[in-house]
Amino acid sequence: ESTTAAAPAHLKIAVVPGDGIGPEVVAEAEKVLDAVTSAAGVTVEKREFGIGAEHWLETGETLTEETLEELRAYDAILFGAVGAAPGDQRVPSGILERDILLKLRFSLDHYVNLRPSKLYPGTTSPLADPGAIDFVVVREGTEGPYAGNGGRLRAGTDAEIATEVSLNTAYGVRRLVRYAFELAAKRERKKLTLVHKHNVLVNAGRLYARLVEEIGAEFPQVVVDYLHVDAATIFLTTDPARFDVIVTDNLFGDILTDLAGAVTGGIGLAPAGNINADRTAPSMFEPVHGSAPDIAGQQKANPVAAILATAMMLDHLGHPDLAARIEAAVEKDLAEHGTEDRSTAQVGDGILAQLA
Amino acid sequence: ESTTAAAPAHLKIAVVPGDGIGPEVVAEAEKVLDAVTSAAGVTVEKREFGIGAEHWLETGETLTEETLEELRAYDAILFGAVGAAPGDQRVPSGILERDILLKLRFSLDHYVNLRPSKLYPGTTSPLADPGAIDFVVVREGTEGPYAGNGGRLRAGTDAEIATEVSLNTAYGVRRLVRYAFELAAKRERKKLTLVHKHNVLVNAGRLYARLVEEIGAEFPQVVVDYLHVDAATIFLTTDPARFDVIVTDNLFGDILTDLAGAVTGGIGLAPAGNINADRTAPSMFEPVHGSAPDIAGQQKANPVAAILATAMMLDHLGHPDLAARIEAAVEKDLAEHGTEDRSTAQVGDGILAQLA
Ligand SMILES: CC(C)[C@H](C(=O)O)[C@@H](O)C(=O)O
Ligand SMILES: CC(C)[C@H](C(=O)O)[C@@H](O)C(=O)O
Repeated sequence: ESTTAAAPAHLKIAVVPGDGIGPEVVAEAEKVLDAVTSAAGVTVEKREFGIGAEHWLETGETLTEETLEELRAYDAILFGAVGAAPGDQRVPSGILERDILLKLRFSLDHYVNLRPSKLYPGTTSPLADPGAIDFVVVREGTEGPYAGNGGRLRAGTDAEIATEVSLNTAYGVRRLVRYAFELAAKRERKKLTLVHKHNVLVNAGRLYARLVEEIGAEFPQVVVDYLHVDAATIFLTTDPARFDVIVTDNLFGDILTDLAGAVTGGIGLAPAGNINADRTAPSMFEPVHGSAPDIAGQQKANPVAAILATAMMLDHLGHPDLAARIEAAVEKDLAEHGTEDRSTAQVGDGILAQLA
Repeated sequence: ESTTAAAPAHLKIAVVPGDGIGPEVVAEAEKVLDAVTSAAGVTVEKREFGIGAEHWLETGETLTEETLEELRAYDAILFGAVGAAPGDQRVPSGILERDILLKLRFSLDHYVNLRPSKLYPGTTSPLADPGAIDFVVVREGTEGPYAGNGGRLRAGTDAEIATEVSLNTAYGVRRLVRYAFELAAKRERKKLTLVHKHNVLVNAGRLYARLVEEIGAEFPQVVVDYLHVDAATIFLTTDPARFDVIVTDNLFGDILTDLAGAVTGGIGLAPAGNINADRTAPSMFEPVHGSAPDIAGQQKANPVAAILATAMMLDHLGHPDLAARIEAAVEKDLAEHGTEDRSTAQVGDGILAQLA
C-alpha cells in the first residue's frame, strides 16, 4: 500500500462474528490474533458488534448510521459472515448483502478488494495439475455494476424493462490500478494482468485499459498483459500458475475470486481484505466464504480463511512480521494435517501450536 | 425448440470461414456436412461469404446491410471465426466483435445462445475428477450488458465517467426462459439452474427470477434451482456433473461457457448455436473458440467444435437424425484417438471414416 503505517503498540479492532459459521471461525481467528499480538507486546482492544441476519430478526436493523459511526473509531474490522438460513422467508432476499456488506464497502470507501490465492501444501485442488498457484486479485470495491444504479420500468408486467448500470470513474479506477501496480512491483514476478471485457464493454473497458497504460508507464519493471474475463476463467483452470497480480472490476473480481478459491482447494481457505488504502476509514477483513448455515454450530467450518484474513489485517495495520508469522503457522499446519477431518477449534489450536 | 421443422430435402447454407483457423476448421465441417447430407439424399446449396479481418483489410467493410440481407435468404449460417492477428494495429480493437459477431446476433435476433458442454471419452479434463459432464448453457444473446448501451463523459480526462447499461426485458427473458424449460423438459434429468447475481444486480436478477418462477409453473416436471454466478464457477470446477440445463444472461453465459469449455477438455471441442427460435431469420452455428491466429494455416486446429456446430445446425434445420450421426462419429473418433497429435484434416477424415 502507498501508506506504510508505523507498527502501533495498540490496536482497536471491531469484531463482527455475524451469522452461521461466522462466530465459529471468528473465534479461532481471535485466538490467533490474541496469541501473536500478546507475544509481540501489542495490546488489542476489541469490541464485538451484533450485525447480521440474527441481529436483523431481533431488532429490524441491518447496519445503522450510529453503528457505522462507531465502527469508524476502530483501526480495522474483523468480519465473519452474514446470511440467513436458506429459505428463511423472514429475511428479504439481498437485504443483508446490500444493507450490510455493500454498505460497509461503500461507506468506508473500501476501494480495493484484495484477494490472495495460494495453493498451500497439504491442500487438494480439483485440478489434476494445478502447478504453483500464488496470485492476488485486486478487485474494485466501490463502483462498477455494484453501484446499485439501475431500475425497473413497468415492473411485474409483460413489458418490464430492468436495467443495471455499471458506473466506472477515472477517479475510482486510477486509485485501484495504482494500488495494483504498487503491489506487483513489490512481488517477485512483477506481473500484472488486467482482466476485463473491452471488446464488448467498450466504455468501461477502455477506461481500465487507458489507466493501466498511463500508470504502467511509471512502473517499467512491471510486465503487463490483458485477458478478457472469459479467457481468464480458462487459464484459471488450465494454467493458474501464470498469474501474479490480477486487476479487475467489481463483478469480474467477484467471479474470478470464487473460481480462484475453488482451484486453490476451496473458499474455506480464501481470505479477503476490503481496503481503504487512503486510510480515511477502517478497512475490513473477512473470509471469502459465506455463513454456510447448513453446517453452522457443528464445528465443521474451516477457520483458515478467517485466520488468514486476520494476517492480512495485521499486515495492513503495520505488523507485516506478525502477518508473516500467522501465514507460516497456517502453512505448516496445512502441510502436516492437510484437509484432515478436524473440528473448527482443532484447526485453530493446531495453528496456535505452530505459532508457539 | 418450440417449432419443429419438417426434415427438408434441400438446405441453403451460408458459409463464413472467416480468419485464422476459421477456414481450416470450416473445411472439415463442410466435408462432414456434405457426407451426411448426401448419404441421406439431402441436397445442400452453399455460398461462401467473405467476412472478417482479412475482408475488412481488403475492403474496409465489416458486415454491410447488403450482406446481411443476402444472409437472410439462407436457412442457416455456418461460421468459422473472425479476428485479426494479435497486435495488428490496422484493425481497431473490438470492431470485428461488435460490427460482425454482435451485429449478426442482434440483427438476426439470435436470442438463444445455445452451448452444450460434454466430456467426451478420450478427452482430458484439467479436473482431477470431472465426473460425467453433460449440460447445456442457454445464454441470452440479444440484450443484457451486450446491448451496447453506455457511454463516456469527460472521456480521457481525470474526471471521466464510463457507463455500461445492462438492458433486460420481460420480452427477451421470457422467450429465453421458455426455450430453456422446453429443452430441460426433453432431457433425461429435467433440471434447470438459473444463474444470476440477484443479490447485487437486483433489478435484472428479479426479472429473471420472476420469469423462471412464472414459466416454471407450466413445467412441473422440471426441477429448478438457482446459483449466484460466483458460486456457479465453483461448482463448474468441483462438481460440473450436477448441471443439466443452465439458463443465464448474456455476460454470465459468456463467462460460464468458456469455463465449461475448459473443464470439458478445451474450447477446441465446444460448439455454439446462435438461435432465432422463432425462425424469423437464419440461425448461426460456430465453434466457441476464436480465430487463433498464432496457429493459423498450420493444420493444428481441432475441427471438432466446428463439426459439432454443424450437427447442431442440422438438428435445428429438422434433421436430428443426421445431427445424431455426426455426434456419434465424433464420439467414436475421440474415444479411439483422443487428443492424439493429428492434423486438422486428419481429425476431419477420422470423423468421416466413422460416418461411413
Ligand atoms: C455477498 C455478495 C454481495 C459478495 C459480493 O458479490 O461481493 C460476495 O459474493 C463476495 O464476493 O464478497
Ligand atoms: C468475441 C465476443 C464478442 C464473444 C462474446 O463475448 O459473446 C465471444 O466471447 C463468444 O463467447 O462468442
